[in-house]
Amino acid sequence: MSTTATETNTNIVAENAFLQELVRQIRAQDHYGVYRSWEDGLVLSPFVVSREKKRQLKVDGDVDLATQLRILSFYRAIAACIEKETGKLCQVVIDLSHEGFGWALIWCGRLMVVSRTLRDAQRFGYDSLEKLAAEGEKLTKSGVDYIQRFPEIANL
Amino acid sequence: MSTTATETNTNIVAENAFLQELVRQIRAQDHYGVYRSWEDGLVLSPFVVSREKKRQLKVDGDVDLATQLRILSFYRAIAACIEKETGKLCQVVIDLSHEGFGWALIWCGRLMVVSRTLRDAQRFGYDSLEKLAAEGEKLTKSGVDYIQRFPEIANL
Repeated sequence: MSTTATETNTNIVAENAFLQELVRQIRAQDHYGVYRSWEDGLVLSPFVVSREKKRQLKVDGDVDLATQLRILSFYRAIAACIEKETGKLCQVVIDLSHEGFGWALIWCGRLMVVSRTLRDAQRFGYDSLEKLAAEGEKLTKSGVDYIQRFPEIANL
Repeated sequence: MSTTATETNTNIVAENAFLQELVRQIRAQDHYGVYRSWEDGLVLSPFVVSREKKRQLKVDGDVDLATQLRILSFYRAIAACIEKETGKLCQVVIDLSHEGFGWALIWCGRLMVVSRTLRDAQRFGYDSLEKLAAEGEKLTKSGVDYIQRFPEIANL
């Protein structure tokens, strides 16, 4: 990745609340300080996977740990954004089979606010940071809507 | 285990709908027919773990695959019993960390009908088949109650 691309990415991240939260989630797990000197745009760059790159990624093996952690960070960032907007505690579980199939779940009390089936998880990623942000914001909004529609279930 | 104990167990299983379902779940995964000639009581015997035995089981390592499958079968049997009573499709996810901590989740639509934190999963088991049945029935009843209280969330 060229420096210019990284700088553009960092600007996008600086202006987007969801991407900011995603960076926070990743840095929180950076126990050895590998990313300490990295710009935000660079930290998020593994989330951008082009279609061509996706085609090259095999889906017949295990989902590698780095990809699993990326998926978990993505849904944790959504949960954190939902918590900020609603003030309710959310739980996150990612359940992946060895074949890359599974569930991404976020719930709050007895209310499932995000439930997505995952497939070909080996290829997790988005065309661009903008699309990544849009997807995160869409899921956040949908989750917040559920909590506002059914507050009594979210409080159970 | 003596033959007499196995026979007693088989009688208990024959009279209990939850244990019957649990046996069905295990036999459904018995792809190589290992249990084909086993009585029901013997198939369920690994679910009975005495307190003394639990103390001997270490909790500082991975949860072995057989135990993971037992936990999954237990919650799948609960989900199947809830489905039978309510006619609603339930999903089951067991999320276990390497340290034996995690979640057992059963949901239906947007309604979480069973959500339990697991700990020391290496020691999963009950004092007796009666206690195993009682626990399964308790969770089934609680799940059915939730669906009856909030049918509109379960249908989402």
